Amino acid sequence: MYSSSATELQKSLSLGSISIGQRRNMIPAGDNVVVSTMKLEKLLSMKGGQGEASYANNSQAQAKHARCTLHLLKETLDRVQLESPEVPFVVADLGCSSGTNTIYIVDVIVKHVIKRYEAVGCEPPEFSAFFSDLPSNDFNTLFQLLPPLASNGGSMEECLAAPNGHRSYFAAGVPGSFYRRLFPSRSVDVFYSAFSLHWLSQVPEAVIDKRSPAYNKERVFIHGATEATANAYRKQFQADLAAFLRSRSEEMKRGGSMFLVCLGRTSVDPTDQDGAGLLFGTHFQDAWDDLVQEGLITSEKRDNFNIPVYAPSLQDFKEVVEANGSFAINRLEVLRGGSPLVVDSPDDAAEVGRALANSCRTVSGVLVDAHIGDRLGEELFSRVQTRASRHAKELLEQLQFFHIVASLSFA
Amino acid sequence: MYSSSATELQKSLSLGSISIGQRRNMIPAGDNVVVSTMKLEKLLSMKGGQGEASYANNSQAQAKHARCTLHLLKETLDRVQLESPEVPFVVADLGCSSGTNTIYIVDVIVKHVIKRYEAVGCEPPEFSAFFSDLPSNDFNTLFQLLPPLASNGGSMEECLAAPNGHRSYFAAGVPGSFYRRLFPSRSVDVFYSAFSLHWLSQVPEAVIDKRSPAYNKERVFIHGATEATANAYRKQFQADLAAFLRSRSEEMKRGGSMFLVCLGRTSVDPTDQDGAGLLFGTHFQDAWDDLVQEGLITSEKRDNFNIPVYAPSLQDFKEVVEANGSFAINRLEVLRGGSPLVVDSPDDAAEVGRALANSCRTVSGVLVDAHIGDRLGEELFSRVQTRASRHAKELLEQLQFFHIVASLSFA
Repeated sequence: MYSSSATELQKSLSLGSISIGQRRNMIPAGDNVVVSTMKLEKLLSMKGGQGEASYANNSQAQAKHARCTLHLLKETLDRVQLESPEVPFVVADLGCSSGTNTIYIVDVIVKHVIKRYEAVGCEPPEFSAFFSDLPSNDFNTLFQLLPPLASNGGSMEECLAAPNGHRSYFAAGVPGSFYRRLFPSRSVDVFYSAFSLHWLSQVPEAVIDKRSPAYNKERVFIHGATEATANAYRKQFQADLAAFLRSRSEEMKRGGSMFLVCLGRTSVDPTDQDGAGLLFGTHFQDAWDDLVQEGLITSEKRDNFNIPVYAPSLQDFKEVVEANGSFAINRLEVLRGGSPLVVDSPDDAAEVGRALANSCRTVSGVLVDAHIGDRLGEELFSRVQTRASRHAKELLEQLQFFHIVASLSFA
Repeated sequence: MYSSSATELQKSLSLGSISIGQRRNMIPAGDNVVVSTMKLEKLLSMKGGQGEASYANNSQAQAKHARCTLHLLKETLDRVQLESPEVPFVVADLGCSSGTNTIYIVDVIVKHVIKRYEAVGCEPPEFSAFFSDLPSNDFNTLFQLLPPLASNGGSMEECLAAPNGHRSYFAAGVPGSFYRRLFPSRSVDVFYSAFSLHWLSQVPEAVIDKRSPAYNKERVFIHGATEATANAYRKQFQADLAAFLRSRSEEMKRGGSMFLVCLGRTSVDPTDQDGAGLLFGTHFQDAWDDLVQEGLITSEKRDNFNIPVYAPSLQDFKEVVEANGSFAINRLEVLRGGSPLVVDSPDDAAEVGRALANSCRTVSGVLVDAHIGDRLGEELFSRVQTRASRHAKELLEQLQFFHIVASLSFA
């Protein structure tokens, strides 16, 4: 059950493009770790494979969340302008990961669009689906999970009458960061991206620059940080989202639509990061402080570590979409997303503590290990677990994610 | 050095679509192996990863061979009809594997086509490259080897002026068998496929049907087999190539071209399989006979194993292209491809034996292990090695591949 809750967070938090920028003031770690101008873009991903702890086998919670927004997705699809059936209809999932959820969603999209063609008495076109994520994503597992194409070669007609267990679209994987270009101009009808856009492309440089007022002294996340730090994060988020929209506005066909879901927050104040804040701003923060107080790492080592996640407010998000100006907003709102902590025995404090530590680790483990090494990473997360166990009841009551849902159309 | 020669064969022999059909008369093996109606399509691939024995690090020989045919590839590219620069130019490598060779080839193709646009004073279009192989291919490694896109988002102009170490095309991986559809209709300008089309989609059923005159009794390959067996193989090869061409003729844009290289033979008689025959029809065959004589497997167990490779003659190939009728033949010929045995000390018989056994195993190991289990597979290849060592000089002199090279245009 832990792995299930862990990967819930993982999917909520660990997609998108991440690179840690210049870390000028970093002290070399005792471990054999060198972190400077490190591109984590090539490193981070969901847990691959099809094993017990893999994303492929532990993404039921995400599936549930995705299903909760299906009616909003379909509403978005109804906005898409249908072209002549000679032109292939192109769908792209950005931050697809390696489980069956992305396959499920693409199937929903294709089937809904086929229905729309049929409703107007029109032969449906051929479909192409692009599954995109960072190059570190486990595409091998994803490709092996893909059902076979419902065709024996030749015409696409059999494909569209896809029997169960077959897919009715051509499939391709696209490795790359969605903060840059991924597709040719005017080639995509529908973009879908779930639980990925809250990942920043990098920790803002000012946040790890000792001389900057935005230096995030004593903290590893912006939850509870200074206004200057929070503003640097917000600026980075907005710059990244702007880059995302700019690239998509090149790639999207006229009349296309986009459905986006990412972590969000309900407060105006960015130093209150809601669910992400509870995850990275409390016990996780305290565990880092433990390592410093126990002399295992220097305080600077801690101060130079930052989780590159930003849960935007509706306003943060909206400003960027409006400044970009290419997209009409069909819908933009914050929804309650539920808890990531799925445990068998809610009264078992140890289990809850373990679940939170697992969740934290699945999401940030790669970053932590790169910063302080595996051994100290182990120490850190055991302290997260101990601390979380002491606050099990509180965590179950309060750990709650909010999601921003955006439906945008390209005129 | 062995791994280098091994992967030479591997690339020459182990791509494409393979499925072992009904094996009605099979005797259960002593090992925990069940083989019936087994789809090897999901199993077979080049050695993945980036380790010492990986295809990614052991494909210099293939690179050399590919470079030898570069002038013919460019000649094919000169046949492609250029469209307006608003339409993306699309390239697909079918049977791309996971090394840098496919990246090198795609780069050559894109650069050559850019030159052609420039030569007519035209702005080049955007480029899309599709890397396709069976779902069992190591796409993860391939994606990590891909250079970054030479763009910071926005326009494609910077991309086309790609600095060294960057790619000037959008990249995607396409998992699937090239004997079926992989792409939407009329979407691809250039198809490239090297060292893959000699793999049959399956062992012909008659070859493993005891009641059929084509039953390949006592043999594991068609080299030296009966005429009936050889004809069943030829029929399968021609049916597969026909399916390949049928799918491509749907997918290719009018004016597009295709460059194909696969194992071939110089003799008219299909029971003389040239290089592939020497590889699978002599010491490998004798090693299977050893296992039978030593009582380790039954003779039926051996008789039901068949290598699903067919090295066609020029005539075999040509008949299918002509029967399809969609493609104009620019060039169709047999070229000498060189030896796959690369050894440090040609006088060291043990090294030559080991190299041949390695080569054999890299290519057929997955099939062998699925048929008789890992333990007996080990026994088999140690016998191949012993036998090959005794014929080292002969092997170095005689093991020689021929390739069919085809340049086809779609009117």
